[in-house]
Amino acid sequence: MEKFAQIKLGFLGGGANSLIGQMHRIAALMHERYQLVGGVFSSNFDCSLAHAMSLDIPQNRVYDTVDSLISGEMRLSASERMAVVAVLTPNALHFDAVKKLLSTGFHVICEKPMTTTVEDALTLQSLVEQTGKVFCVTHTYTGYPMVRQMRELIARGLIGDIQRIDAQYLQGWLNPIVKDDQKRANTWRLDPAVSGSSCCFGDIGIHAFNLVEFVSGLSAKSVLADLHSGERSNHLDVDGTALLRIGTDVRGSIRASQIATGEENNLSISIYGNRGGLKWEQENPNRLVHLPEEEPSQIYTPGNMYLGALAMSSTKLPAGHPEGLFDAMANIYSGVASAIHGDATSPGSFPTIEDGVRGVRFVAASVASNLRGQQWVDL
Amino acid sequence: MEKFAQIKLGFLGGGANSLIGQMHRIAALMHERYQLVGGVFSSNFDCSLAHAMSLDIPQNRVYDTVDSLISGEMRLSASERMAVVAVLTPNALHFDAVKKLLSTGFHVICEKPMTTTVEDALTLQSLVEQTGKVFCVTHTYTGYPMVRQMRELIARGLIGDIQRIDAQYLQGWLNPIVKDDQKRANTWRLDPAVSGSSCCFGDIGIHAFNLVEFVSGLSAKSVLADLHSGERSNHLDVDGTALLRIGTDVRGSIRASQIATGEENNLSISIYGNRGGLKWEQENPNRLVHLPEEEPSQIYTPGNMYLGALAMSSTKLPAGHPEGLFDAMANIYSGVASAIHGDATSPGSFPTIEDGVRGVRFVAASVASNLRGQQWVDL
Amino acid sequence: MEKFAQIKLGFLGGGANSLIGQMHRIAALMHERYQLVGGVFSSNFDCSLAHAMSLDIPQNRVYDTVDSLISGEMRLSASERMAVVAVLTPNALHFDAVKKLLSTGFHVICEKPMTTTVEDALTLQSLVEQTGKVFCVTHTYTGYPMVRQMRELIARGLIGDIQRIDAQYLQGWLNPIVKDDQKRANTWRLDPAVSGSSCCFGDIGIHAFNLVEFVSGLSAKSVLADLHSGERSNHLDVDGTALLRIGTDVRGSIRASQIATGEENNLSISIYGNRGGLKWEQENPNRLVHLPEEEPSQIYTPGNMYLGALAMSSTKLPAGHPEGLFDAMANIYSGVASAIHGDATSPGSFPTIEDGVRGVRFVAASVASNLRGQQWVDL
Amino acid sequence: MEKFAQIKLGFLGGGANSLIGQMHRIAALMHERYQLVGGVFSSNFDCSLAHAMSLDIPQNRVYDTVDSLISGEMRLSASERMAVVAVLTPNALHFDAVKKLLSTGFHVICEKPMTTTVEDALTLQSLVEQTGKVFCVTHTYTGYPMVRQMRELIARGLIGDIQRIDAQYLQGWLNPIVKDDQKRANTWRLDPAVSGSSCCFGDIGIHAFNLVEFVSGLSAKSVLADLHSGERSNHLDVDGTALLRIGTDVRGSIRASQIATGEENNLSISIYGNRGGLKWEQENPNRLVHLPEEEPSQIYTPGNMYLGALAMSSTKLPAGHPEGLFDAMANIYSGVASAIHGDATSPGSFPTIEDGVRGVRFVAASVASNLRGQQWVDL
Repeated sequence: MEKFAQIKLGFLGGGANSLIGQMHRIAALMHERYQLVGGVFSSNFDCSLAHAMSLDIPQNRVYDTVDSLISGEMRLSASERMAVVAVLTPNALHFDAVKKLLSTGFHVICEKPMTTTVEDALTLQSLVEQTGKVFCVTHTYTGYPMVRQMRELIARGLIGDIQRIDAQYLQGWLNPIVKDDQKRANTWRLDPAVSGSSCCFGDIGIHAFNLVEFVSGLSAKSVLADLHSGERSNHLDVDGTALLRIGTDVRGSIRASQIATGEENNLSISIYGNRGGLKWEQENPNRLVHLPEEEPSQIYTPGNMYLGALAMSSTKLPAGHPEGLFDAMANIYSGVASAIHGDATSPGSFPTIEDGVRGVRFVAASVASNLRGQQWVDL
Repeated sequence: MEKFAQIKLGFLGGGANSLIGQMHRIAALMHERYQLVGGVFSSNFDCSLAHAMSLDIPQNRVYDTVDSLISGEMRLSASERMAVVAVLTPNALHFDAVKKLLSTGFHVICEKPMTTTVEDALTLQSLVEQTGKVFCVTHTYTGYPMVRQMRELIARGLIGDIQRIDAQYLQGWLNPIVKDDQKRANTWRLDPAVSGSSCCFGDIGIHAFNLVEFVSGLSAKSVLADLHSGERSNHLDVDGTALLRIGTDVRGSIRASQIATGEENNLSISIYGNRGGLKWEQENPNRLVHLPEEEPSQIYTPGNMYLGALAMSSTKLPAGHPEGLFDAMANIYSGVASAIHGDATSPGSFPTIEDGVRGVRFVAASVASNLRGQQWVDL
Repeated sequence: MEKFAQIKLGFLGGGANSLIGQMHRIAALMHERYQLVGGVFSSNFDCSLAHAMSLDIPQNRVYDTVDSLISGEMRLSASERMAVVAVLTPNALHFDAVKKLLSTGFHVICEKPMTTTVEDALTLQSLVEQTGKVFCVTHTYTGYPMVRQMRELIARGLIGDIQRIDAQYLQGWLNPIVKDDQKRANTWRLDPAVSGSSCCFGDIGIHAFNLVEFVSGLSAKSVLADLHSGERSNHLDVDGTALLRIGTDVRGSIRASQIATGEENNLSISIYGNRGGLKWEQENPNRLVHLPEEEPSQIYTPGNMYLGALAMSSTKLPAGHPEGLFDAMANIYSGVASAIHGDATSPGSFPTIEDGVRGVRFVAASVASNLRGQQWVDL
Repeated sequence: MEKFAQIKLGFLGGGANSLIGQMHRIAALMHERYQLVGGVFSSNFDCSLAHAMSLDIPQNRVYDTVDSLISGEMRLSASERMAVVAVLTPNALHFDAVKKLLSTGFHVICEKPMTTTVEDALTLQSLVEQTGKVFCVTHTYTGYPMVRQMRELIARGLIGDIQRIDAQYLQGWLNPIVKDDQKRANTWRLDPAVSGSSCCFGDIGIHAFNLVEFVSGLSAKSVLADLHSGERSNHLDVDGTALLRIGTDVRGSIRASQIATGEENNLSISIYGNRGGLKWEQENPNRLVHLPEEEPSQIYTPGNMYLGALAMSSTKLPAGHPEGLFDAMANIYSGVASAIHGDATSPGSFPTIEDGVRGVRFVAASVASNLRGQQWVDL
């Protein structure tokens, strides 16, 4: 392993019981390129302190707000100061934090959806362009080696001109929640004030959409969405299907649900070109299926010499030794580290501000389409 | 095996190189309840005669038109006469033949789509009601034991109230045809005069739709469809996605394509209720996946005592001995034979005139929705 | 479909509740090349008559013994007479019947194991050579198109020189029987007088062994077997594992069980050469996996132009339309029909007397090896 | 996450290009319960120093031999000193290092095979008993949640009394090496002086054997092995099959190969009892198949409430979010950490000295059985 000075990392959110916090922390550790030095781990300062202690993080790097974090860190020398801050708070808090962090010179890693409005997303995009800071939105699934290989095979023309793209993201976890007032009240994703205008599409549909564009290299032009709140007294979507028009003449669909009872985390994508198809499923992520037009189908797996450079460098173990979602996120953190170090990075090594903006547009346009009774809305 | 007098069967279409002819012939033979005695096997009488000879069918039971078949058969004694005629011609020829056959006292087995217009479908429905004849539309896939089990499990309430239904039917065989003028001219499914107003939805989307209603026991209320001809100079759809509103508050989708390059015959359906989900895939048909809400998922397979009565009686071999599509069609022929014999038949033992009408409505409404720029159309 | 005079077929065994009878009957019907004209369907003559009636077979072609069948049929003209007889009785009755049938000029299709001793097997082999009659032992699984493709790919050198072969055949159906005296007494496969010296290896291990030699084109040299009766009071094996030495330097294994509780009919085979591997599983038979040394793995499926001639001609439907075990057996019946007609037949189009002898040798040697405390025994 | 003082960890081996080093390092980091503080990373001291530098490990904690490591660490205060040392060197070096470490008070984590002789293994076992130190042999695969669940389900009686166990571990990576003198010379696993008496069985067969005993809770009594060096000039096995006699009346088999060309890391195990079966495959590790006798089969997956305590605590993410081999090893490191802290640990939370001894016995007995021409040898 090559020697890198470890990058100083801070967290906004991601406290004691936060799954997403654990995900980012392990991902940051895995390639030994980051050191978590402080943050605002929780809106409750005592919790934040306790969490820091459990991680051997000194108390003086624990802050109560993003503002105090910025002012505290700015007082430190550049080599001690956080270089990058991971923004892991609920959706509605992303914009303000990211804006302040970018403006004061921090690189940012931000959870999706990047913002709750397109306007905010565009503001951040301008800011990234102005500041030249590294910005990553964590569409974690793009870190899987087989997703990266899928992207490369398409770019290389393996399946020819794309004709159809279908992505789905099905979960069942909201099923017991959405009809129970009590449980619903405790679920921030169902609260428009915290989550924004969408639950299901903003939380998971956006991942499916990101995969569509990430893998195909194409840009969706318009969307027609049929969203569903599952229950009259619930305000946000928990299920929906969207039609897409992509590029010049490609059709696509996004199906997403959090009330697909029994499904765990069934994200998948299929892309068909005029020379063949490619299919990938997140729950069995180390398998990429290629359907050529007149040959036996093929299964690509990680760790093999026949893979492209980015996919090849996205595993740490030999073929047949499964890696998982932490490893995928670690690949993204590794891409960000290279960018922060100013190294040349492969396109696709982490999702950027452009991905962030596209995702927010998709959610907003889907909600608009649905409100208008399933009209096409431009993206 | 119980003794049945074998039912005299005639064919319209299904000649020498007809796959669908072979499918119906083997299906009819399998349970030894039918005897193929004659028909109009081809629009070319010489071909028809040659085909009959290859099957040891006497020349005097070979006819040149449906009219001569009817008059010829009517001259025979009831015990010699065809009891049922299978209509296997291209779509546009179904209506006239079926009308005449029903009117003159024949039972009818008819390929899908039953007719090319809703009006014709309703005419046939009235005729079936008036004549009391047995009528079956061959949605072959409903003959698979695991499809029948899926229907029964839903009827029994295993997955609770249905919330979402997704069906897809993806093939790639039109991909090399649709952009080649020569090949296209030789493909009757792409000719509106023979195929009707739809290719892909009329040929395979209709099967996916039929599964949605057959398996769920629910009736779709409206459809919004985005169809695609793949090529400017082609007039009929070769690909499309439809949104469905089903029952009171169920959402669904149908995805169908004949340019999903590399796909063979990928028909599948997933249904999610408020207590679990069920999933089935035609290319691996002897597996039905049940996703309960808080238990390990389950795999049902044919030939096991835990199956419902119709599924249990839909295999001939012990568990683990795969049966296929001929066996599925044979199950449907067996259901029709029981109905002709006047035996009590389980609901679901063969698709009826109601299924036929629903399918035609679905195709017509999808085409209309698409023409109107993806508006909702009632079913 | 080409015109053939239908071959007159007789049955020994295969009566009313016989699964194997149904299997052979449907297989014979499927390609429309056989007509079942009579036989001894049951050891009980009344049952035999009743079964014949249910199949529209005239009473005068129903016999009470193989001797009366032979003398009765010999009185008929050659064109009316059975050309081939399918021997479907329990194991111990095969030898005598087959010997008489071959000697009097009938072609024979015989269930496995062909005989219960090697001596008898060799006698039949001589007889087949002397008489020149067509003889087929029904290793049904060799009729699957993907098994045939596997054989061809190996013959073609796709995986190079073979290094290792593993086959398994696991079922669970004897589990509830073997420890229950009553049920055991009603199971002829556990009765040495009827079944011969082996239950599990004679019934299913033999299929696995046949696949090893059929697919690899190699001949096993010796076997070391560890057999297991599951229960002290049971005399025949219900489970076992055998080591094989094959060809010059190939190692193999056969695992077979009828007390692998929960398994249905899990026959599978994996073969590894110095350039790659091939794997097939009977419960998902329309999939052949190829593992090349440095390329993505491949999945072959039936009905595709890339297949070899025998595999290509072993399906009746387009790719993606599953066929099953009846279709596999029908392919074997079709191969036998061609041989009876004197047509050139591909090697592998049906299992021959050599396969029959090899199977009997394998069972006998395995039993001997086990008796000697797991010594190597030549094959 | 609860607060633990991080455990000071040292490495013997596991240097710059060592996969196993990376595996242990990431596994130790993942649960944030260890800190890697020093070691002998390479037999070349300069490489060792360079590697330490790349990991921000101070130079004064880099040693050139195990002896200097021990004396160096003993000079430090107990709180600074390594508490546990991971022994990651080639096989033949394990014994001496482990003996010295245990004797001087270090806990030990040791790669498999623990030693190259049974005598050495027993010496270490005595030493562990005498010293009371925590000792773990890294059978990594026991860290997978579904392997742990399999063990618990069997202990709970889900499949009744075990009747048959089959395990296999198939790889193809030695195929291009074993016949190439040059490559072979560069592969320490094929050198008896470094690897001990076995390559394939000592490297991977031992994992399969460990799973058999770990999961079943049974102890194998004797083994009969047929090993194969693949090439005359090669001295160690690269392929083999072993028969097992287990407990009172259970039969088993181990199949292992490193010349199963095309296989990546195909470790799997199937266990059949008198009430059902359980199956698991390492290449798709987040799936445990249960085959009950008369019910639909079941699929257990990680992260679900229906799992047992140890399996439940062996994932960090919700259901459907795949974890892999690093996560499995991290679970073992976590178990060791709890043992070092003196917490109550579940049986099965890490493989112990007993597992280490059993593995060495298995390899030695297999080699002996093979040398004697496949005789049974006691374990």
